[in-house]
Amino acid sequence: MTFKEMLQQHLEETEEIVYRYLPGEEGYQKTVLEAMNYSMKAGGKRLRPMLMMETYRLFGGNGRIIEPFMAAIEMIHTHSLIHDDLPAIDNDEYRRGRKTTHIVYGEAMAILAGDGLLNLAYETACSAFLMEPGNMAIGQAMTILASKTGVNGMLGGQTVDVEAVGQPLEKEKLDFIYRLKTGALLESAMMIGAVLAGASVRDVNRVERVASDVGLAFQIQDDILDLTSSSQVLGKPVHSDEKNNKTTYVTIEGIEKSKKDVETISKRAIETLKELPGKNEFLEELILSLITREK
Amino acid sequence: MTFKEMLQQHLEETEEIVYRYLPGEEGYQKTVLEAMNYSMKAGGKRLRPMLMMETYRLFGGNGRIIEPFMAAIEMIHTHSLIHDDLPAIDNDEYRRGRKTTHIVYGEAMAILAGDGLLNLAYETACSAFLMEPGNMAIGQAMTILASKTGVNGMLGGQTVDVEAVGQPLEKEKLDFIYRLKTGALLESAMMIGAVLAGASVRDVNRVERVASDVGLAFQIQDDILDLTSSSQVLGKPVHSDEKNNKTTYVTIEGIEKSKKDVETISKRAIETLKELPGKNEFLEELILSLITREK
Repeated sequence: MTFKEMLQQHLEETEEIVYRYLPGEEGYQKTVLEAMNYSMKAGGKRLRPMLMMETYRLFGGNGRIIEPFMAAIEMIHTHSLIHDDLPAIDNDEYRRGRKTTHIVYGEAMAILAGDGLLNLAYETACSAFLMEPGNMAIGQAMTILASKTGVNGMLGGQTVDVEAVGQPLEKEKLDFIYRLKTGALLESAMMIGAVLAGASVRDVNRVERVASDVGLAFQIQDDILDLTSSSQVLGKPVHSDEKNNKTTYVTIEGIEKSKKDVETISKRAIETLKELPGKNEFLEELILSLITREK
Repeated sequence: MTFKEMLQQHLEETEEIVYRYLPGEEGYQKTVLEAMNYSMKAGGKRLRPMLMMETYRLFGGNGRIIEPFMAAIEMIHTHSLIHDDLPAIDNDEYRRGRKTTHIVYGEAMAILAGDGLLNLAYETACSAFLMEPGNMAIGQAMTILASKTGVNGMLGGQTVDVEAVGQPLEKEKLDFIYRLKTGALLESAMMIGAVLAGASVRDVNRVERVASDVGLAFQIQDDILDLTSSSQVLGKPVHSDEKNNKTTYVTIEGIEKSKKDVETISKRAIETLKELPGKNEFLEELILSLITREK
């Protein structure tokens, strides 16, 4: 099987698991449930739950306790997309070729659907307590999920990004945004996989470093592609950062240094990954494909 | 000590506990942290954490494991106020005599501050896992917290309420909104208190019924006061339901039946409360004061 075929297979497996945790669309609160499912079913790479599952497997995990957490992290990611798209924040009408949630369901319902998904993530993760009562790793996984999502994680990065619009950024602040807005949920995904498979504290810390590097390299590559790719290849407008006067890694470091940094950071990530006990070739390929992607 | 003095003492105790879990206002994400604290420190009755603590005490609880959950439920309540006040939802500029969060910090930051508080609630509750590793009641308490907040709890009620604006409501739907929007968090508060103190499943179910009745009676009393009180006594405009063409319990059942129902429901709540093992006179008085209040 080629990597592409494997990726497709894993995507289907992941979606099957995530979809199982979506709410039925019944009762008086039908509209918000529809709005939540509309955005959850809008496609996407399902990267976070996939990374979680593959890290779980890397450490020999083979149970089902990982499944509610896979659904939970995708719900958290989707929550952040719904709220990011709102008129008061990015004001985007389309995402992945479909109308955004507030365009279809109105602004009030989009706010509440985002809230609903953020909360459903924790409800869903809590179902793990019933699956394996007394498994102490569940509390740890829940703690990672909450702290990497919050004001010292993804949400913190989002707020700084929102405030930075139209302002020149120093390198340190840009790093902070990248590390939190993109990195934190990847760290959360991979760390939860490791913790639920029973990895040692030392290995969980290594996994966190891998995920952090992957997030950073991914984000720099994003900035490079916005400048060097064509909208035909990318499937979205290019030079958008330039047009928006946005400070990016490339505007600070220049294109050559940025490319070199992606290489250095990726190498470091793969090396750290290889230090871990266990082996998961698909995970290695998945990470490499994210960093070296051309679109 | 009079009940009023005791209430003041308990309020101070509750605020001291809740405030201890509020974030410092440092780092790049300073603004969102300020916005979160601005609304958390806006006063209020701190009813939910107080009911939680008193139910915990009723069942003989005397540890500190209850404290993160007290802070968590107040954060969830405050999150819902911030988002309810947003222009797309209730569009309120003042709450408790202070400007609302989006008026002070802007709409984008208010959305993210609300998200931040909802998430911080779970981060805060997770800190209980470190306090008493292996205490299985923590997972149960977390599950109650999440499910009573979500689409089958408070948030579900909020969405139905938002959709119902300007429409006539049948009794069943109004009951649904009251039960979820007001009742669910009160149930959550009291049930978590009971669970963390080690109450039996049967008693936790009884506590849920008490809280549900308290929520319903509280809400009906609210409708009655809007019609019968003066804005001087109430400290907020009266006849607002009438002006907004809002279907309330009183418009459906009439004023006399409504008053009688408050009495019946209150009586039932207090009777169920008295069936529970343990005694907490302050809790009884607190509940009575909520239901029979004149403002």
